[in-house]
Amino acid sequence: MIYITRKEHFSASHKLHMEDWSDERNEEVFGKCSNPNGHGHNYQVYVTIKGEPDKGTGFLVNLKTISSIINEYVIEHVDHKNLNEDVDFLRDVMPTTENVVKGIWEQLQPEMNKLNCSLHCVKLQETENNYAEYYG
Amino acid sequence: MIYITRKEHFSASHKLHMEDWSDERNEEVFGKCSNPNGHGHNYQVYVTIKGEPDKGTGFLVNLKTISSIINEYVIEHVDHKNLNEDVDFLRDVMPTTENVVKGIWEQLQPEMNKLNCSLHCVKLQETENNYAEYYG
Amino acid sequence: MIYITRKEHFSASHKLHMEDWSDERNEEVFGKCSNPNGHGHNYQVYVTIKGEPDKGTGFLVNLKTISSIINEYVIEHVDHKNLNEDVDFLRDVMPTTENVVKGIWEQLQPEMNKLNCSLHCVKLQETENNYAEYYG
Amino acid sequence: MIYITRKEHFSASHKLHMEDWSDERNEEVFGKCSNPNGHGHNYQVYVTIKGEPDKGTGFLVNLKTISSIINEYVIEHVDHKNLNEDVDFLRDVMPTTENVVKGIWEQLQPEMNKLNCSLHCVKLQETENNYAEYYG
Amino acid sequence: MIYITRKEHFSASHKLHMEDWSDERNEEVFGKCSNPNGHGHNYQVYVTIKGEPDKGTGFLVNLKTISSIINEYVIEHVDHKNLNEDVDFLRDVMPTTENVVKGIWEQLQPEMNKLNCSLHCVKLQETENNYAEYYG
Amino acid sequence: MIYITRKEHFSASHKLHMEDWSDERNEEVFGKCSNPNGHGHNYQVYVTIKGEPDKGTGFLVNLKTISSIINEYVIEHVDHKNLNEDVDFLRDVMPTTENVVKGIWEQLQPEMNKLNCSLHCVKLQETENNYAEYYG
Repeated sequence: MIYITRKEHFSASHKLHMEDWSDERNEEVFGKCSNPNGHGHNYQVYVTIKGEPDKGTGFLVNLKTISSIINEYVIEHVDHKNLNEDVDFLRDVMPTTENVVKGIWEQLQPEMNKLNCSLHCVKLQETENNYAEYYG
Repeated sequence: MIYITRKEHFSASHKLHMEDWSDERNEEVFGKCSNPNGHGHNYQVYVTIKGEPDKGTGFLVNLKTISSIINEYVIEHVDHKNLNEDVDFLRDVMPTTENVVKGIWEQLQPEMNKLNCSLHCVKLQETENNYAEYYG
Repeated sequence: MIYITRKEHFSASHKLHMEDWSDERNEEVFGKCSNPNGHGHNYQVYVTIKGEPDKGTGFLVNLKTISSIINEYVIEHVDHKNLNEDVDFLRDVMPTTENVVKGIWEQLQPEMNKLNCSLHCVKLQETENNYAEYYG
Repeated sequence: MIYITRKEHFSASHKLHMEDWSDERNEEVFGKCSNPNGHGHNYQVYVTIKGEPDKGTGFLVNLKTISSIINEYVIEHVDHKNLNEDVDFLRDVMPTTENVVKGIWEQLQPEMNKLNCSLHCVKLQETENNYAEYYG
Repeated sequence: MIYITRKEHFSASHKLHMEDWSDERNEEVFGKCSNPNGHGHNYQVYVTIKGEPDKGTGFLVNLKTISSIINEYVIEHVDHKNLNEDVDFLRDVMPTTENVVKGIWEQLQPEMNKLNCSLHCVKLQETENNYAEYYG
Repeated sequence: MIYITRKEHFSASHKLHMEDWSDERNEEVFGKCSNPNGHGHNYQVYVTIKGEPDKGTGFLVNLKTISSIINEYVIEHVDHKNLNEDVDFLRDVMPTTENVVKGIWEQLQPEMNKLNCSLHCVKLQETENNYAEYYG
């Protein structure tokens, strides 16, 4: 079994804010992240798949294929977007790193299952100092 | 003459969009950056000052002082903010990297002049792949 | 189950030296690390916790809380310190990366247990080229 | 149980090309990687071993020893080499990241078994955007 | 005057070898870089231009334009290529970092002159530990 | 004229402390850096030289030569050392980044003058967030 990882990135805005909470409670729980006009990040996405490489080509799966899938099912939906407003697969969830990484997993897993491999992990880095990982 | 540089960072959202232009022209000039709900970045700010170190302490200026000034005059105004809406010193300018780096310079220069040094350069990195520099 | 990681850093000095060994044996086993006046590093600490995110806030645990705990129980004890002389939780152990990462785990685990999550891994990076990980 | 990791690097050329395939099929499967005159990369190798640190020295294994083994059994064979032509342990395999990481594992495992530890993982980073991992 | 920089990258192979020198002299001058079957690198190219930003758009030049020019005149010629064999603008020069950075400048300068800006610097990073810069 | 830069690194301890000052004044001016038992850093040194590349070899100066000089005249004196106690060329100066970068310049310049090039800049990075540069 070999694990291969492809990194892609996107830039997006978001805010962490509960509509039915007071400003004070939002500020208390979400701090600066609750700024009404939002803020944003350069996100890095690491997608890891696992399986057996082909005896001939030496490829588990061609990384061009992996990259195309990540771009079609994830990056085009989130890059230069507002994660609270613009993204179908994040409708009705707070766009924390935890929820976004899970949303990305759910976008990718059905597509990876069609290939000769399985999705192992999605890692989403929000800033230099924090990231979330999801293994399904 | 010695040059010392302090790096700080902030996360912010923005959009590049001319109100009096058609959507088509905005899309043509600003591309994905004109998304109506905005997007965002992790910005890195590099502030370089120059001067002669003190014979005794060996400090040009204490970097704690430099860091405090950058935080008071820049970071607190832009971190977890929307650069189009929330920032006094960017009022009425398009928040491109070019304009933001110039705005940061203008915030910092009067403060640096009060110290025993002069501001040499402000560099603003918007993504891993692009940055702007301003020398006054 | 989601895993989230927070990175913090500190700068410290140490030396690897057995008091009851000859200089030759210290030099043989510890090499340059046994320099009598010590040397130092910029250390990076990665703290990974795991659990289920809250349905409402989308947070596993607020990273501000995690960051505060790491700072109170680890960083304040080791930052700008001498790991052989100044650190209670490293008393009587050789401050190798292996022992320091274990000491940090023991500082953090009781505090993480009080939250709605569990400590999964502590990773300590000593230089660009080496790091240690501990999973309890 | 503690895990320690040592990073080393090498620069090498390779091409991904099946001799008995048409140029079209090579181009289709391997794309730009099939360029007849080859291309190259700066590779980073991360070698992770696991075990119990020594009570006295605090070392799992001296990283100087690990570094020497990686250099003798891997780096000297691949650094500034052509992975298709020059490397004994890659004879008769396509030099994809998947196959090279497995070849490195097979070079290192017998040597690590002679020490008081076991090889846990080899990670090979080919570019900033992709890497492979092998756990045996 | 504002300076903006765009980073692009490419992967290529090369060898440093004088045809009319003995193997011994090649080895003496070029060391491991003279390996007959070549080796390779992940190169990073930083292109810096300077000028006055547009009052309205806030752009010195749209970075999409800069990126397209770098890709058309440089990256497509060198990415996944052999710098000794495959590159028109490096014909008859030894592909050292010094010569390649100069070749890239000469490819880019006429194109930048057609825009409202001028080329200031090309920086070419060959490995993590060395790079060359050319200012014309 | 071409500029080439070589990066090397070292790990060292130091403290910023004036013997004839009170503890209070030391704490006030140098903060955590005045800890009596010292602290330490992983330092990165960037040495930039300038000149005309040789028409034949394409080298300004062989980077192996530059690297050897940096190692002989700088790294061997400071790596795994205490900058207050162990370093001849820092005797009687406070080991701030400003003073160390100047000390490194003075070690290197006479040696570079013996080659077909001149020393342009020494940059010393003390942490991820600060560095000093000296141009003579």
